[in-house]
Amino acid sequence: MNVNGKPYRCIWLEADGRRVGIIDQTKLPHQFETVSLATVDDAVLAISDMLVRGAPLIGATASYGVCLGLAEDSSDATLATVCAKLIQARPTAVNLRWAVERMRALLAPFPPEKRLARAYKEAADICNEDVQVNESLGTHGLQLIKKHQHQEGQPVNILTHCNAGWLATVDWGTALAPVFKAREAGVPVHVWVDETRPRNQGAHLTAWELSAAGIDHHLIVDNAGGYLMQQGKVDLCIVGTDRTAANGDVCNKIGTYLKALAAAANNIPFYVALPSSTIDWTLQDGAAIPIEERAEDEVLQVSGKDKDGTVQLVNIAPEQTRAVNPAFDVTPARLVTGLITERGVCEASREGLLSLFPEYR
Amino acid sequence: MNVNGKPYRCIWLEADGRRVGIIDQTKLPHQFETVSLATVDDAVLAISDMLVRGAPLIGATASYGVCLGLAEDSSDATLATVCAKLIQARPTAVNLRWAVERMRALLAPFPPEKRLARAYKEAADICNEDVQVNESLGTHGLQLIKKHQHQEGQPVNILTHCNAGWLATVDWGTALAPVFKAREAGVPVHVWVDETRPRNQGAHLTAWELSAAGIDHHLIVDNAGGYLMQQGKVDLCIVGTDRTAANGDVCNKIGTYLKALAAAANNIPFYVALPSSTIDWTLQDGAAIPIEERAEDEVLQVSGKDKDGTVQLVNIAPEQTRAVNPAFDVTPARLVTGLITERGVCEASREGLLSLFPEYR
Repeated sequence: MNVNGKPYRCIWLEADGRRVGIIDQTKLPHQFETVSLATVDDAVLAISDMLVRGAPLIGATASYGVCLGLAEDSSDATLATVCAKLIQARPTAVNLRWAVERMRALLAPFPPEKRLARAYKEAADICNEDVQVNESLGTHGLQLIKKHQHQEGQPVNILTHCNAGWLATVDWGTALAPVFKAREAGVPVHVWVDETRPRNQGAHLTAWELSAAGIDHHLIVDNAGGYLMQQGKVDLCIVGTDRTAANGDVCNKIGTYLKALAAAANNIPFYVALPSSTIDWTLQDGAAIPIEERAEDEVLQVSGKDKDGTVQLVNIAPEQTRAVNPAFDVTPARLVTGLITERGVCEASREGLLSLFPEYR
Repeated sequence: MNVNGKPYRCIWLEADGRRVGIIDQTKLPHQFETVSLATVDDAVLAISDMLVRGAPLIGATASYGVCLGLAEDSSDATLATVCAKLIQARPTAVNLRWAVERMRALLAPFPPEKRLARAYKEAADICNEDVQVNESLGTHGLQLIKKHQHQEGQPVNILTHCNAGWLATVDWGTALAPVFKAREAGVPVHVWVDETRPRNQGAHLTAWELSAAGIDHHLIVDNAGGYLMQQGKVDLCIVGTDRTAANGDVCNKIGTYLKALAAAANNIPFYVALPSSTIDWTLQDGAAIPIEERAEDEVLQVSGKDKDGTVQLVNIAPEQTRAVNPAFDVTPARLVTGLITERGVCEASREGLLSLFPEYR
């Protein structure tokens, strides 16, 4: 996507052919800054401190993280250590494990001296595949948006939670890919952006993406979506997922479940957009997904730009108050109208997923 | 309730017998400051700028607002103007209209020179009645909390939204009155405090009240309650209401509806605590309640204390992004397990309410 007229992906190989460039997403929406990762530890920190976030981009970053580790030493022992380190960086993200396992399985049989070049090629392939997958997903999702355009020229009102835009992937995004495709196709859309506390990825990233693309949107607090649905102001919801169980249960940013309940109660379609790499075929349902508990400071503090233009953290609670901070929740498949994948849209069920991915039967 | 060992109500007559003291709740939780209201315009601003908030306290403040207006001129014309001004200060609060109408109906028949003393007496009565009503409500609610204590010595986990504590009333609170009564009775409780964006009354006020009273609690983002309910970590929900329809539909802070949906989906009791002054017997159901739309800056900005201890507003969104800010939503009676009133607990239905308030049959 374009930023100030210049095309960007969210991750790229630097001109030296070794270091890896990323956008420091913790600085958005107030500053657009890029960072060069030089070591595997840089990659681990970029993932755990959420300079990069979003399941597909985490996978892509981890795959380049393997390259950065091998660039120092391409022995079997280092390959093992590097992969283990990267997998620990974010426990929930299934794409992280998927990307690291793919790199390891590919690289392990090669003699150490041949690994590095092969690793960089594979990381580039993972990125390019992600872009293709997301673009396909956008094309399929666009059909759903068109289906909900009740009147020519009237915008389709789409509610989204967290950020599953291009910043969450290498390019295009997942939940927002259909929105960007709608823009391209001239289908008018208006997006309700949940701010998505505690980290405000909606306010910081989704709003920034939509602003940058000139797409009509309004920011709302996470509390407001139910009311807007009651009032008929939401035509459909599209969210992403960090991990999808084989039965169609989805594990996404905390609060997704509440919006899915409200959508079901108000007969509003609730779609989840996902690259198939997000599906954990070994999980019978979502109940077993471990939920990451993050630091309480994310709840107790909010980041924003003060009147002097300085970005800082402010404390919202009394000093003695402690917080609890679960980062994800599981939305049961029965609340999901459909899954938008790179191969098309299916019912959120084992049969639905297998109809598109019969190789997992 | 005690603040630093000194007993306070949320509103009081100052020593001069004319001015009215309040706690400036916009400064909490970082500073505890009191303000003296000297004119009806001070009272209007205190209500519209939310120095005082919460349906019962708004009513009490408005009743003293009538006194402050009459203190300057007690003519028929001024009585009419003062009442009209006060009613405009917050459109949703039914207690505001109720208190002002009660003052007007009482005072209008008196000759102007007798109105002022009578007005101050009536305002004091309104405050004392509120305290009694809330304390009764707390006593009835305590029985519900006891009912949910599954094991001796184990805390009952209560989720609440927004602030319906003593700061929302003259004293005791509505939703939190049962919690304070439980504390008094030695029944262990733990409160999940929704931060309640956009104004963060949970983080600012409820957490402050519970901290001040030494009651175990954790702050959570508004997104987290559904997950905690799925995990069995919530035994019951208790919230307040700004306006209750005759059929038991409740209009409360935006986001209440989402928690009620989650409670129903997880078989968790969802109680609403209300003084009967909150009931609008003329409303057949909640659909007709006008929802106050507040300024978008409440969504775009967050107030907090920076690292130097200065309280300030920070901007969370990109500059081009606009926001929409509905302040309340309506929770249908079918999602409400019971209404806790000063006369006892009833089903959230017309019949339930009439069983406790047969005079409205």
